[in-house]
Amino acid sequence: MSNIQSNPEQPTHALFQIRWSPRAFDASKDVSAEHLVSCLEAARWAPSCFGDQPWRFVVCHRSVDEVAWQRLLACLTPKNQEWAKNAPVLMMICANTVFAHNQAPNRWAEYDAGQAAVSFCLQATALGLVTHQMGGFDADKVHADLGVPENVTPMAALALGYQGDAESLDDGFKAIEQAPRARKPLAEIAFMGQWVAAD
Amino acid sequence: MSNIQSNPEQPTHALFQIRWSPRAFDASKDVSAEHLVSCLEAARWAPSCFGDQPWRFVVCHRSVDEVAWQRLLACLTPKNQEWAKNAPVLMMICANTVFAHNQAPNRWAEYDAGQAAVSFCLQATALGLVTHQMGGFDADKVHADLGVPENVTPMAALALGYQGDAESLDDGFKAIEQAPRARKPLAEIAFMGQWVAAD
Repeated sequence: MSNIQSNPEQPTHALFQIRWSPRAFDASKDVSAEHLVSCLEAARWAPSCFGDQPWRFVVCHRSVDEVAWQRLLACLTPKNQEWAKNAPVLMMICANTVFAHNQAPNRWAEYDAGQAAVSFCLQATALGLVTHQMGGFDADKVHADLGVPENVTPMAALALGYQGDAESLDDGFKAIEQAPRARKPLAEIAFMGQWVAAD
Repeated sequence: MSNIQSNPEQPTHALFQIRWSPRAFDASKDVSAEHLVSCLEAARWAPSCFGDQPWRFVVCHRSVDEVAWQRLLACLTPKNQEWAKNAPVLMMICANTVFAHNQAPNRWAEYDAGQAAVSFCLQATALGLVTHQMGGFDADKVHADLGVPENVTPMAALALGYQGDAESLDDGFKAIEQAPRARKPLAEIAFMGQWVAAD
């Protein structure tokens, strides 16, 4: 058993290299209904436990329904609103926590919602769009204002649009935006044969 | 507000169309170490809340460590073992449920592990490999036999390899293998502006 090392000779598909989560969105460029549906289609075809497909999306497209878009924006933390206000599409990604076939709790609901979410993001990447998911939102407000039922858990808000200019951000956000992307080394997350304690 | 309809004129990237979860694996074709690392790299670059990267993988490559591979196989339900025994790589996908920066519970741990998992699967698809995730395993046995700590939740087992011949499966599995892929209509999972009760 051993830790697994990255191999720079074995890069991933370009989609995984290009996808990232910027905060600078171009408020002047709308997302087409066709592109939005493509992203939702990618999410729709994600795998799920028992094929339950527990992911649910409340989609707010500013140019289609300004009131709904403002209502979702208001569910975000003030700090997230500062930059998400430039995204033409805002969305809540939710997880239905009860299996449809037997009404039992679905222990994979959130896991499977995550599978659908990143599928959405990768399809957006393929279309030249950018996405940014947020955990910073008021879940009670999402239930109350968006009508999400109690057995459905709001997991993440998502901003979709075209990338904007980092110079448009305030200094704090700009520093984060321009920092190099980083991840833990593979050796800290992948273990060969058996768990290896990291520390 | 309204439900959202699929638009067959707006297909997704091929990766989402090609990815699926077969049960027929070709036991005679091994997965290269390079391909395995590429899949793990795609998972590694998934997005996560606070950049915590809560995904953890225990990877069992039969040709590298037969004992470890058998140990993971034995954690699966007998029904899953019937077909997963032909996959050259078996893996446990886990979620670290505690944030590294403050040791608080991470409510996105499972969601983010799902994001990493499907990234792994899509990269495998890009390399001509197939994957099949399983919820049917003995989590207590995974903790005990693979050494997964208590604060890390085993979420899914995954089989990785090359697709085999559906004719090699028993009749029950073969029928499932040859059935057309299906998903809920988009209108049941995506709502414009506000939640729309499905029924």
